[in-house]
Formats: sequence, structure tokens, C-alpha cells
Amino acid sequence: MDKIQNGWFSEISEFWPGHCFSLEVEKVLHHEKSQYQDILVFKSKSFGNVLVLDGAIQATERDEFSYQEMITHIPLFSHPNPKRVLVVGGGDGGVLREVVKHPLVESVTLCEIDEGVINASKNFLPKMRVGFEHPKVTLFIGDGLEFMRKRKGEFDIIITDSSDPIGPAQGLFERPYYELLKEALAPGGIVCSQAESLWLHLDTIKNLSGFCKELFPHVEYAYTSIPSYPGGSIGFILCSMGGSCKKPVREIASDVQSQMQYYNEEIHKASFVLPQFALNKLNL
Amino acid sequence: MDKIQNGWFSEISEFWPGHCFSLEVEKVLHHEKSQYQDILVFKSKSFGNVLVLDGAIQATERDEFSYQEMITHIPLFSHPNPKRVLVVGGGDGGVLREVVKHPLVESVTLCEIDEGVINASKNFLPKMRVGFEHPKVTLFIGDGLEFMRKRKGEFDIIITDSSDPIGPAQGLFERPYYELLKEALAPGGIVCSQAESLWLHLDTIKNLSGFCKELFPHVEYAYTSIPSYPGGSIGFILCSMGGSCKKPVREIASDVQSQMQYYNEEIHKASFVLPQFALNKLNL
Repeated sequence: MDKIQNGWFSEISEFWPGHCFSLEVEKVLHHEKSQYQDILVFKSKSFGNVLVLDGAIQATERDEFSYQEMITHIPLFSHPNPKRVLVVGGGDGGVLREVVKHPLVESVTLCEIDEGVINASKNFLPKMRVGFEHPKVTLFIGDGLEFMRKRKGEFDIIITDSSDPIGPAQGLFERPYYELLKEALAPGGIVCSQAESLWLHLDTIKNLSGFCKELFPHVEYAYTSIPSYPGGSIGFILCSMGGSCKKPVREIASDVQSQMQYYNEEIHKASFVLPQFALNKLNL
Repeated sequence: MDKIQNGWFSEISEFWPGHCFSLEVEKVLHHEKSQYQDILVFKSKSFGNVLVLDGAIQATERDEFSYQEMITHIPLFSHPNPKRVLVVGGGDGGVLREVVKHPLVESVTLCEIDEGVINASKNFLPKMRVGFEHPKVTLFIGDGLEFMRKRKGEFDIIITDSSDPIGPAQGLFERPYYELLKEALAPGGIVCSQAESLWLHLDTIKNLSGFCKELFPHVEYAYTSIPSYPGGSIGFILCSMGGSCKKPVREIASDVQSQMQYYNEEIHKASFVLPQFALNKLNL
């Protein structure tokens, strides 16, 4: 907890050297060293409760909806009939909460390596833990790569809601994982993974999209604005065995839209539009 | 300079309580108290040289192009024939640098209240000071409201590149200023002003857009991603006496496009697409 000084938590990391985001702490709610990582939850003065893994902010109650809605509804609304969904990571439950908003979905499996994250969310992040309470959800505690090796042609959508590629999530940014993802997809399936920031990790994104283009017919990159992530934005790589993910292919029912705080049809489309420096580099 | 501690500059402000962005400082290059504000320039470890006014980051060499290109080219490419341009604020010269990329522009006037900002930029921000060197540019040192009172029907585009509405820029976020802007516009003219972040100051934006809608036939809001501004994004209010600003109305010549790091036709259009929470509140 040495990252809290004078009442402020600072997200200093070698993965984004020389700059950081800080939040004023009202109260530390939970701190443990799990088998895999350091888990911290604190109540902040202006961003609600905050989940931190190995010193990196994973979710704040004030802005998590941007990330959770966009990583979920972009692939879900890009698939004509998503019935079986897998979430790798996502132990806070926020992505589950979004997936079950789709009536077409028949089952959602969550594969999280660290049960400590799930418990921290269940105890301190009430807006996200609701995801675990839905009857369509099945939990699996274990390694995402191991889990994936046994699954062939099963899932219409696989969302990888991981932390950064330093620590337990490193393998989730490498080619062997994407080869397993491809095999685990049902025909026409779509993969959507947390894929870092255009401003901070363009080389990581270029590498990731490079090997994905050798594996999948459609590889696209979308991003969203979120104040509590480094650089204020975060992106997603979308790899599809069906069509492009740049536009919703199903109507967004009004009772579903009314539950959204960030996502809508127009922002789905706009999220794929890259600034010129990224377009030049990524060639997507 | 008490905002630099242990080698880090932290942008703590009552205008965005409870969170802040910090940059590691390599060397302080300049510090003065001008007649209007505290002016600090430092060399950062990862964002190049940084201009800070009254403790708020105005521009870093790493990401300033996002702000300068978007606040300039959105209004300029939304006007069929922009000949006379006024910039209020913008003492770092970055907006001037962008305006003069348009061959149609015949004259650009910069009205900056604080000559100290211009001198700091000329001395320490070489990528931005180039704006001052163009023969079409005229400088005027003085108050933006005063300047505006004497100008009627003169400008095709007026860009207000101001700091936040606490300190010398406060009047630039109020209705009397927008009444003067309207009178200073030539027929079909467009106003584009720095208008804060959707995430942090939605009430300020609602108030601003509210009175603007009483004055101008088209009032629209666009935003861009920029890591060094609070919340990682910044917006612009566009008030037009001609048509909508949501799409470029002129072709972007390839020799102009090739000078852009952020702006392009698609990102111009995408920058107006609001997340649902902002759409609900602003009704724009």
C-alpha cells in the first residue's frame, strides 16, 4: 500500500513511465496479497469505490460503465445471434452485468484466474457484482489459457477483460492465446479483448493486430474515453470470423438502450474511427 | 512551484477535486508570476516540454496536436470560405500554426491577454511558436472582451482557446462574451471555443450550450482524446450562423492532410458523437 501517500493513491507504473493518475482516498476498504496479485479496494473522494490490481486501477464506480459497456456491446451487437458467451478475466463482474442485458444470450461463462478479485467485487463493488447473480452465468476459477485448450467451436463471443500485459495477464496478449481463441469460437464468432491505449501503447497494439490479421478475416480496433485509465482512453481489438464489427447488425431495443450510460448505435460506429497518427501506424 | 514535489508536477485543482494527473519533471525551464497568472514551463520525462498556467496544464509537446488540430480544423473545414480568422487566447501559438495550414485564410488575428504566455512559448515551445512566424498573423495583446466590443461582422471564424473558467478566462464562458462573438462574426460565421470535459464539467457545458442555443441557429459539441488534460479528453462548443459543423464542407487537400497528426474527415464527424449520458443531459 506504499502507493498511497498523503491520502492520495498514485498509479505509478513502468508500463506508462513519467506520468500517472491519482485519486484522493477516503478509506481503504480491503487489501490482500492473493496467490496471483496485490488486490486493493478503496473508497475514493470523487470516483466512488475503486478496484486496484498490482497497483493498476481496474475499475472505479464513477466511470467503469464506459469500459464495461463498450467491451461488451460492440461485439454482442456485431453478432447476429450471440447465444454462448465466454468472458476471460473480468472477475469484477461488470462485463457479466452487460452481457446478460442481451435476451438472445443463453449462457455466459466467466473464467477468472483469481478468486480474490471476485470476492473483493462481491464485498465492495455492488454495482458490478450484480453480474454474478444472473441465472445464465457459470463461474470457472482457473487459467484462461488452460480453460481455452479444452474448448473447440463453442462460443459465439469471447471477451477478454484482462489487466495489462505485465503480471498474470501477460499470456493473454500473445499469439498462442489468440490461436486458442480462434479454435474456441463457433462459426461466425467474434473475439473482443482489452487492447490498451492508442496514445500509450501503439507498438503493443500494432504487434497484437499484426498476428491477429494472420489468424482472423476481420481485425478491427475500437476505443472509448475513460478518465481513470492511463491516458484517459482504452481500446479493444475485435477479431471476427463473421463480418466486420464496425456497425451494429441488430436493432438495439429501447428497453436495452435505456439501461445504457455510454453505448449507443452512433458511438459504436464512432469508436472505430482512428486519429491520423494511429491510422498511419496500424493500417487497420 | 509548490505543485512540484519529489520530482513530480501534480495538477491538483478545486475545479476537478479528488483526482489529478501528474508528470515527472526533468527540469524547470521557466517560472514567473505575470500580471495575470502563474506561468510555469518545465521539461517532463515523457511528455516533452509542458506549459502550465495557474497550476493547470495548457499544452505538452507530446499530445498538444490533438487539441490544436481539432479546435482549429473542425470550424475551418465546416466553413465554405474562411478568410478572416480571430483567435482569442491561444498565446502558445499552437492554434495559429494550424490556422495557417488553410490556404484560403487571408488573415489571422490573435488576441491574448498575457504577453508572458507568448514569450514563454517563443522561448520554450518551438513546435508551437512557429505559429507566430507566419506573415498572415497579427498579434494583439489585450482583453478578449474589450477587443470584441469594437469588432462587428468581421470574422468568418472565431476560436476561443482559453484556460478554464477560474481566473482570467472566466468571462469567456459567460453569455455577454457570446453576444459579442455573434456580433463580431461575418455572415455565415462560426465560433469554436474550448468547452471543458463531458466527464468532469457536464453542468458547465449544459449552461454554455443553453444560452448559446438562444443566440445561434446551430449549437454543437465535439470532443477529442488528450492524455494530459483532466479526464483525458476535452471538448469544444461550435456555434454557427451558417450550417451544421458536423461534417467538413470542403475537401481536405492531400498536402494539408499529410500535415495532420490527429485530424481527418472521419474523426471530424466522429468527434460529435456523444456517449449516452452526455446525450441525455445536453440534448444537442
